[in-house]
Amino acid sequence: MTAVASAVTIPARERAVQARALPTRTIRVALAGCGVVGGALVRLLHSSADAIGARHGVRVEIVRVLVRDARRKRDVPLRAGVFTSDVEQFVAEDVDVVVEAIGGSDVAGVIARAALGRGTRLITANKELVASAGASLAALGRTAGATLDFGAAVGGSVPVISTLRDLLGTLPPVYVRGILNGTSNYVLSQLERGSDYPEALAAACHRGLAEADCTRDMDGSDTAAKLAIVAWVSFGVDPSTLPVRRIGLLPEPARFVRYASALGGRVRLIAECARVTDGGITCVVEPVIVPLESSFARTELEDNRVEVGLGWSGPLAVSGPGAGGAPTATSLLSDLLSPVPRTADSSPTRAFEAVDDPRAHSWLVAGRVSARTLLRTLDTSGIPIQSVRASAGDSHVVTRPAAWAALQPVIAELAASNADPLVARVELPAVGRDLS
Amino acid sequence: MTAVASAVTIPARERAVQARALPTRTIRVALAGCGVVGGALVRLLHSSADAIGARHGVRVEIVRVLVRDARRKRDVPLRAGVFTSDVEQFVAEDVDVVVEAIGGSDVAGVIARAALGRGTRLITANKELVASAGASLAALGRTAGATLDFGAAVGGSVPVISTLRDLLGTLPPVYVRGILNGTSNYVLSQLERGSDYPEALAAACHRGLAEADCTRDMDGSDTAAKLAIVAWVSFGVDPSTLPVRRIGLLPEPARFVRYASALGGRVRLIAECARVTDGGITCVVEPVIVPLESSFARTELEDNRVEVGLGWSGPLAVSGPGAGGAPTATSLLSDLLSPVPRTADSSPTRAFEAVDDPRAHSWLVAGRVSARTLLRTLDTSGIPIQSVRASAGDSHVVTRPAAWAALQPVIAELAASNADPLVARVELPAVGRDLS
Repeated sequence: MTAVASAVTIPARERAVQARALPTRTIRVALAGCGVVGGALVRLLHSSADAIGARHGVRVEIVRVLVRDARRKRDVPLRAGVFTSDVEQFVAEDVDVVVEAIGGSDVAGVIARAALGRGTRLITANKELVASAGASLAALGRTAGATLDFGAAVGGSVPVISTLRDLLGTLPPVYVRGILNGTSNYVLSQLERGSDYPEALAAACHRGLAEADCTRDMDGSDTAAKLAIVAWVSFGVDPSTLPVRRIGLLPEPARFVRYASALGGRVRLIAECARVTDGGITCVVEPVIVPLESSFARTELEDNRVEVGLGWSGPLAVSGPGAGGAPTATSLLSDLLSPVPRTADSSPTRAFEAVDDPRAHSWLVAGRVSARTLLRTLDTSGIPIQSVRASAGDSHVVTRPAAWAALQPVIAELAASNADPLVARVELPAVGRDLS
Repeated sequence: MTAVASAVTIPARERAVQARALPTRTIRVALAGCGVVGGALVRLLHSSADAIGARHGVRVEIVRVLVRDARRKRDVPLRAGVFTSDVEQFVAEDVDVVVEAIGGSDVAGVIARAALGRGTRLITANKELVASAGASLAALGRTAGATLDFGAAVGGSVPVISTLRDLLGTLPPVYVRGILNGTSNYVLSQLERGSDYPEALAAACHRGLAEADCTRDMDGSDTAAKLAIVAWVSFGVDPSTLPVRRIGLLPEPARFVRYASALGGRVRLIAECARVTDGGITCVVEPVIVPLESSFARTELEDNRVEVGLGWSGPLAVSGPGAGGAPTATSLLSDLLSPVPRTADSSPTRAFEAVDDPRAHSWLVAGRVSARTLLRTLDTSGIPIQSVRASAGDSHVVTRPAAWAALQPVIAELAASNADPLVARVELPAVGRDLS
């Protein structure tokens, strides 16, 4: 047999079976929020109505939409009468499902508790809400016979939560680690391509990835909330009580990009939840300098990427657009069409606890000081240095592996002398001039 | 605020909630097959019993195992009495779920029809069975009120089917494309590292990836079956009627590796299902020569990788170990613990049909002939040539974009003159010496 002899010629066209099932059931939905995500969901439901009817036998009807200004004209295929700005009217609506896409915790929390408390299924894209109140909301729902789904809260379109949930019957992961914020990753990519920070931010806003204030994206808060949710799903730890060690990219993200480039790598804001002792997990969000050819360095623009280590030959990985209206709306729709709630089993039932990170990593430590001053500061800490670079009062070192805790006095001393200290984890195989 | 000031110190240890739910329900399982995959499932169920009980409130009991030799000693935590080699006794067992992990279509088909026909849920890792009879089995199950799940049939541990299913409510993908066979990818990786083919095959067997005869892995048949299942889930086309254009890596995989290396790329056996006309899809499995730095080239050893194009900025991608006992068993367990069947909506309901591939690609065409002869053969076809290389009666060209159909006379002529023709798709940005 030759390699090509097995090719099969395609026969004459043959119609696939076309019997379209007629929608047999209507799902009545109340939607909170009609911005980037909510609006995208409305449009997606409209454009996919036939496919949804054929494939799932259901018709999704949006009967009420909560917005700030009910009279504002919106580019969505809905009649004007469905809009309301009255939260009480909104939560009183008798529906099958409430979809929450307004973000924040205040009004969103009122809506979530009202829905779950009277037994109505809640689907949310709101990572702050789930991170801060997910466990209690799920408990409230269990009592009332309603469920909480939040696949859209992490990863945008990337099936992070469902992938983790699929692994729930097995031994827990060794680690879950990834890029969970599309906006900051987009900004880093633009900085790498030569933009300055204001330009990069403006481009992210223009692309519909960010609001005017994206502090929570850039300082790692958004990532930390998502990581807490990941830890909840993977390790059963109540996300509201989970400590997350967090270093963000502010105030000057371009410095991270510059130092990473000097070291021959790229910086990525990486979230990690890892089993570091038998029953202990550590959660960290921090800039990590990774090799140029690594999968994380190659995760660009608004893409997210999550790797799940299971102790096999390689990790499971999922990646794709992690921000933006259409990707997040797709994830909401996926939860909405799931024949059963997916998150009934998210209650904290395992014996994992959060512990201090005992692991040693190499660190980039930078400050607006001379190399001599920086080295002297580190010398007192006893942390060995691997390499040092300096230019005109802006110096950075890469340390040999050291625990996070050992680094704290150094950072405190640099901060006290107004040296604008900056720290990132370094995961490069070999870095710079070796001083050992 | 400095970048590090936002770091949160981890407080004193605090026990997470430990209330373990007691298993409230027993799932009685009959398992067909106790080889690499079946045995791994038994071990996984044993080691994860506590986690399953706590997390899902269920206890999984394996009450019967079908094997060829019931008296053979096996390294699995099961009492000897559960084994049987009697298919009739096996199918008569009254259980909640039948898990089929024996492969092939004959006995597996009998077991599947018996289970689904009397209303028992079937979970299978058997891609041949699902590709050849999935639609009729699903229909049989629907009539009897039972469901068919087959997440483990594609991708090993990689959540290919569940990711595609999650997208079902939206408009169908533009394309699904990926590496779906871990064994052949492992062999290609070993060849790239300098092994010869027998060594690479032996290593794959030793790793538990392949049986002694891995013709179906290497000739693309296994990949084609998985692609048909992917097309069923994504586009609703009955997989048993779906034509798949297929080029394998046999008889001499090392030739592909050698030519790809000469062109500065790597060869991967890639399966693709793409919408090429409004309602038409094309399914192909073929060696593709991809750039060294591409995600597919970087998918090594037994990893699988699937990309789903949705018309967004980038594709969704899932990757990870795609072969081996533990990864596949994890996928079976995931289906087993899913609170509801996942595949109730896999009936062919959309109007997609399979059509000939109208797209033009660059092709590598090689033969054991002189460059002059190869060029003359191509010249008669009218397909323009981009580059040519030759060494001692072994020549290969890269064509300019041409449709697959236009290539067939060339291949036929080369085969007729015993030139061992070989064809691969080329996806390199610029290849070799330009002859235009």
